[in-house]
Amino acid sequence: MTKRDFLAMEDWEPDLIDHVLEIAARCKRGEITGGLTRRVLAMMFMDPSLRTRASMETAMFLHGGHAIALEPGRGSWTLETDLDVVMDGASVEHIIEAARVLGRYADALAVRVFPKGGDWSVEREDHVIRNFARFCEKPVINLESSRRHPCQGLADAMTLREQLGETQEKKFVLMWAWHPKALPTAVPASAGIAAAHLGMDVIVARPPGFDLDPDDYRAIDELATRRGGSLTVTDDLDDAIDGAHAIYPKSWGSLGHFGRPDDERALREGQRDWRLTQARMRSTEGGRGIAMHCLPVRRNVEIDGEVLDGPNSAVIDQAENRLHAQRGLLLELIG
Amino acid sequence: MTKRDFLAMEDWEPDLIDHVLEIAARCKRGEITGGLTRRVLAMMFMDPSLRTRASMETAMFLHGGHAIALEPGRGSWTLETDLDVVMDGASVEHIIEAARVLGRYADALAVRVFPKGGDWSVEREDHVIRNFARFCEKPVINLESSRRHPCQGLADAMTLREQLGETQEKKFVLMWAWHPKALPTAVPASAGIAAAHLGMDVIVARPPGFDLDPDDYRAIDELATRRGGSLTVTDDLDDAIDGAHAIYPKSWGSLGHFGRPDDERALREGQRDWRLTQARMRSTEGGRGIAMHCLPVRRNVEIDGEVLDGPNSAVIDQAENRLHAQRGLLLELIG
Amino acid sequence: MTKRDFLAMEDWEPDLIDHVLEIAARCKRGEITGGLTRRVLAMMFMDPSLRTRASMETAMFLHGGHAIALEPGRGSWTLETDLDVVMDGASVEHIIEAARVLGRYADALAVRVFPKGGDWSVEREDHVIRNFARFCEKPVINLESSRRHPCQGLADAMTLREQLGETQEKKFVLMWAWHPKALPTAVPASAGIAAAHLGMDVIVARPPGFDLDPDDYRAIDELATRRGGSLTVTDDLDDAIDGAHAIYPKSWGSLGHFGRPDDERALREGQRDWRLTQARMRSTEGGRGIAMHCLPVRRNVEIDGEVLDGPNSAVIDQAENRLHAQRGLLLELIG
Repeated sequence: MTKRDFLAMEDWEPDLIDHVLEIAARCKRGEITGGLTRRVLAMMFMDPSLRTRASMETAMFLHGGHAIALEPGRGSWTLETDLDVVMDGASVEHIIEAARVLGRYADALAVRVFPKGGDWSVEREDHVIRNFARFCEKPVINLESSRRHPCQGLADAMTLREQLGETQEKKFVLMWAWHPKALPTAVPASAGIAAAHLGMDVIVARPPGFDLDPDDYRAIDELATRRGGSLTVTDDLDDAIDGAHAIYPKSWGSLGHFGRPDDERALREGQRDWRLTQARMRSTEGGRGIAMHCLPVRRNVEIDGEVLDGPNSAVIDQAENRLHAQRGLLLELIG
Repeated sequence: MTKRDFLAMEDWEPDLIDHVLEIAARCKRGEITGGLTRRVLAMMFMDPSLRTRASMETAMFLHGGHAIALEPGRGSWTLETDLDVVMDGASVEHIIEAARVLGRYADALAVRVFPKGGDWSVEREDHVIRNFARFCEKPVINLESSRRHPCQGLADAMTLREQLGETQEKKFVLMWAWHPKALPTAVPASAGIAAAHLGMDVIVARPPGFDLDPDDYRAIDELATRRGGSLTVTDDLDDAIDGAHAIYPKSWGSLGHFGRPDDERALREGQRDWRLTQARMRSTEGGRGIAMHCLPVRRNVEIDGEVLDGPNSAVIDQAENRLHAQRGLLLELIG
Repeated sequence: MTKRDFLAMEDWEPDLIDHVLEIAARCKRGEITGGLTRRVLAMMFMDPSLRTRASMETAMFLHGGHAIALEPGRGSWTLETDLDVVMDGASVEHIIEAARVLGRYADALAVRVFPKGGDWSVEREDHVIRNFARFCEKPVINLESSRRHPCQGLADAMTLREQLGETQEKKFVLMWAWHPKALPTAVPASAGIAAAHLGMDVIVARPPGFDLDPDDYRAIDELATRRGGSLTVTDDLDDAIDGAHAIYPKSWGSLGHFGRPDDERALREGQRDWRLTQARMRSTEGGRGIAMHCLPVRRNVEIDGEVLDGPNSAVIDQAENRLHAQRGLLLELIG
């Protein structure tokens, strides 16, 4: 048996994803206890977390297991990620040893590592999470890397099914939103893939210059087509939102300006109107379209407070579903 | 059934507090196991902790549950607490979402958030902990806010009962102590309320300019009177200590100079003699009065080492009782 | 019954160490479950950790217990270690209270505290870990102090037995290695003691000026002699490696320049060839000698990547054995 990793949702067969979502739904209904007795999940957080850490720790505990949270550079050693380095500088531990050792203590290794600027042609390879998977003998779970956040994707898919019932041919709008910083593209790419998995008509609405990576569009398009849906990219936000069943506002930085935040900021200036308002919610399908977000969200910047606090908001259910989706994933991977 | 929070000891009926203290005593005697199976406590530490974190984690574990420790601004996102903000600055997550989401993962949410200077007329509203309680659908436990530290208060009350037996009409001295910094008033206010709950004669001894908030005095006075005790405020330390059954030295900053540490320091200069010495312990009731402190304590600054290490010191029992008091609280709230 | 601490391997009778190693081996073979139900281990990390924290947490969990990780100066209070201090400076909590309080919550207290420079004649007393042991009423476990890392020593001994079978009269080379920083001597001293416990012929190979503390040599020599082995100190690395059964490269700073890193660096310049290469591995006994390291290791600086990734490397097994050795230790101490 070869080792299975969960680095990106599209790496797994759709049937297996559906199976995980089914277990997740049963967990949420309280139908599954146990299954992870004496199982250990090691988590490496190279970047901050609230939902991911709390939901993973809860998921392991609820089924009898235990999650360990390590924070390289704070309580744990600073990690070297360059494979061929001569380590005479500041970093103390190589990920090769970290991955191998944690694979001996734990039944799975979960890693969060955001892109750190520099060159997108390098970062887009997602080499850190992929090297963790390469050198760890146990399954590696992506808790958000440069390119993907597949646990969020699972929760997004679970939430869309809960809220919309049949998802086929329904309209999912991935909406670029203004934000004071240039954020990564892992979440929007994963959300698009999640909606594609459900056979939805995925519309990416973004201003010129804010396209996702061509590989992300290809992954969304291929999966959507295979599952009976489609991909459209537009800069006409009002047209995109009209009749939408779900809107997922999310900010991300211009990949054409990756690693150059000052240039990027100039491009973003003047786009503050890309914000999910109550008025925009009213033009969704029957005014009952749902508003989604991975959280943390900038209130009154990405989404207005009245939308977040209103009846169309699914963001808290979506966050709760992180817990159940991950219970399904962990039971499948190491149960 | 409405949600119950534990934000301040005086918010709960004295009978319920007594019930919690009774469960706590039974826990300490080893009479209660289990009761928190599959229960999760999420803890948010906006400020440091040793006893609170270790005792809460132990309390949950001993009864079959699990506590998660999150640290916003370190391993977790920096939190925004202003309800009406446009979040285009540095803070990443709003407490509205944090409170709602953690309420979905956990059975209770415990929060530590110290005052951050600024304006006492704002800080005295204790708005951060109260907003956590407002937006979280599960019980919220105060692990020390701007105004209260009720888990410490429970442990204080438990310790006083253990050490003194009948507490009615016995003399409890809350003694201001010198300290290099202007500290918050949450602990002394909560200690006074704990002693008032026990019907003790509460004497607050402090130099001029170091009064607690008028609301704190009112809360202590009302509860003490209801329970058969009294409140006296004095600047005559020697008279206060004479015949005392318990002395609780604790430093706090001048509320009249809140948020202006340089001015406050000038007021405090020359008060270094407000320190609990062995000589002062000898003038307690029969020389057998107990010395209490919430810890951490500045050795040889707030309390002399020979008092801390001597037979009158109750500080380690008091710290141990944090564990048992919180076991009682958690069993009552989410058991 | 007096309290037992585990501060240094040589503090315990060799028979008891052998007993712990036997339990450890049985744990690794899956023969022991349970034994730590409702047991709590409090861990204080004054310095970073990956293996130690993850393996301790896993060890407690696998047997039904729970480990708490506290980080003074980050999430926990900054600790004062001077016993006679007047605490009117920056440190907030004294280790006397910390040790006493954690001894009330937990069944054992484990502490990591590296030397902080200054004067070796002071640091060599290992006063911080010894004061934790003095003031805590429960067993104290050393997770690496100024002088010793005995949990690493247990794992080293376990690994040598696994890899070499009979260890008596086999050749163990503790090899100084170049490193950009002046590191502590706790690990090399403990590795030498571990090999001495096994009755091996211990050869310390280091450049002039890089001797371990005379007490370390004495401890290694006495234990090795008692167990049928020997101690040799040399600066002839090639002769030392010739026919070796195990090589343990490790960097450490010159004790004669302790606390003066700039002077120390000058002494170390020009010693970069003290590095474990594949060529050197070939001159071990039959070319099959094992390469060991406590990790984290500087790749291509202390040990070449091809050695770490090659068939002679025991470093990952050695790290795994931290887990099992500590299971044995914890079952013996608090089981």
